Amino acid sequence: MLCIGLDPELGRLPEGVSRDVAGVTQFVSSIIEATADLVGAFKPNLAFYEALGPEGIRAWQRVVRQIPGDIPIIADAKRSDIGNSARLYAAAVFDILHCDAIIVNPYQGSDSVEAYMTRPDRGVYVLARTSNPGSADFQELLVDGEPLYRHVVRRALRWKRSGTLGFVVGATAPDQIRAVREDAPDAPLLVPGIGVQGGDLQASNRFGQRSDGGGLLLSASRSILYASNRADFAEAAHAEAQRLVDQMRAATVAVDA
Amino acid sequence: MLCIGLDPELGRLPEGVSRDVAGVTQFVSSIIEATADLVGAFKPNLAFYEALGPEGIRAWQRVVRQIPGDIPIIADAKRSDIGNSARLYAAAVFDILHCDAIIVNPYQGSDSVEAYMTRPDRGVYVLARTSNPGSADFQELLVDGEPLYRHVVRRALRWKRSGTLGFVVGATAPDQIRAVREDAPDAPLLVPGIGVQGGDLQASNRFGQRSDGGGLLLSASRSILYASNRADFAEAAHAEAQRLVDQMRAATVAVDA
Repeated sequence: MLCIGLDPELGRLPEGVSRDVAGVTQFVSSIIEATADLVGAFKPNLAFYEALGPEGIRAWQRVVRQIPGDIPIIADAKRSDIGNSARLYAAAVFDILHCDAIIVNPYQGSDSVEAYMTRPDRGVYVLARTSNPGSADFQELLVDGEPLYRHVVRRALRWKRSGTLGFVVGATAPDQIRAVREDAPDAPLLVPGIGVQGGDLQASNRFGQRSDGGGLLLSASRSILYASNRADFAEAAHAEAQRLVDQMRAATVAVDA
Repeated sequence: MLCIGLDPELGRLPEGVSRDVAGVTQFVSSIIEATADLVGAFKPNLAFYEALGPEGIRAWQRVVRQIPGDIPIIADAKRSDIGNSARLYAAAVFDILHCDAIIVNPYQGSDSVEAYMTRPDRGVYVLARTSNPGSADFQELLVDGEPLYRHVVRRALRWKRSGTLGFVVGATAPDQIRAVREDAPDAPLLVPGIGVQGGDLQASNRFGQRSDGGGLLLSASRSILYASNRADFAEAAHAEAQRLVDQMRAATVAVDA
């Protein structure tokens, strides 16, 4: 159930790790190795690699090989495009960057999302209600008495697709998690923001689970990646990931009881 | 007033140009050289370079140096992210890819757009009403009796910014161009879709211009890039660009009359 965001910031790399592309490769590799036994998915935000130039893309291509094949990789790309451009983004994310799923932005409508849903073995997560301060600006605007993000979820479920369709809802908005789960009882939900952003793990768990107890990934990044800025950063990352997994298990037991 | 989309498709490169990264570099360089005297901006869609892997990014870094410094370059990136991720996308697009402006998607609200508007010498174009078939799915939903895209424009104009704020409206939707111009009388508008997509150049021109006759970029890609698939592709691209510029001039005279 735990998803770890692999978002390496040069300025926050721990002591003893060089603040360059080689350091990023070493750092992300160590985090993967230390936490792979605890995660349900890894989620690289592509901005962190693109900002390092072509060598940053190569760094991701190197570290992705170290992720065990049974752990899904979700590209936090938030792409939004149509036609040929969308098909090429899909090729870049699935074939060049070796990810299993991609996060996309729904503002451009059906054809901007369907372009990513053509492969039975790949997944798409559509942004529904995000965790940032400005998310309410448009996502909460009322259309026929219901907030926009609910229209997004209901409509996306009717679009043509191959592969898995899920939704992103921020952990800072538990009521919205409940609403999305109500609209999409079977879809996988990806819930970021349980770490530094202060999202509510208990409520996310309670409202986000499917009736069979599955279908939920809770995602944290900085609280795990930067749990220590010393040489013990990998052990500290493992410990923080373990703490979150234990909290999720306790919350799940509470839901079942 | 003409903006040319630099979107190289391997499968459509002309005869005599190799279908690889070297061919893309040669092709885009030739198009730039042949049309630079006619354009108001170039607009690379990043998907076409990312799909070629790290070498595709290097190809763009090579061709961008050939664009004369007085021609603005608009990254057709349609990015959507927040906080550090957005700041890193901005760094990637402005500093690594040497673009002067970026197209962003507004669905995540204020902080997802403000992150790109921190530099006085750079610009941001916000997607308002796009030209694709699915664009009406959400952009036309009525909020307080007005379509969502008009709320996007009006709100974005109130956000904190340094640099230039513009909007994207598809040439296939002239009534929407008129509405955006009404809501944003002074903002630059980028209007794609006047070529292959069949947008209405006359109407786009009439409704999109500011009252001073400026503030409008009409964008075409495939009709110019693939005007010929023979060795004369650069001359053909120039001729097609010239034809569009002549049409725009004629339309502008008609508006003035």
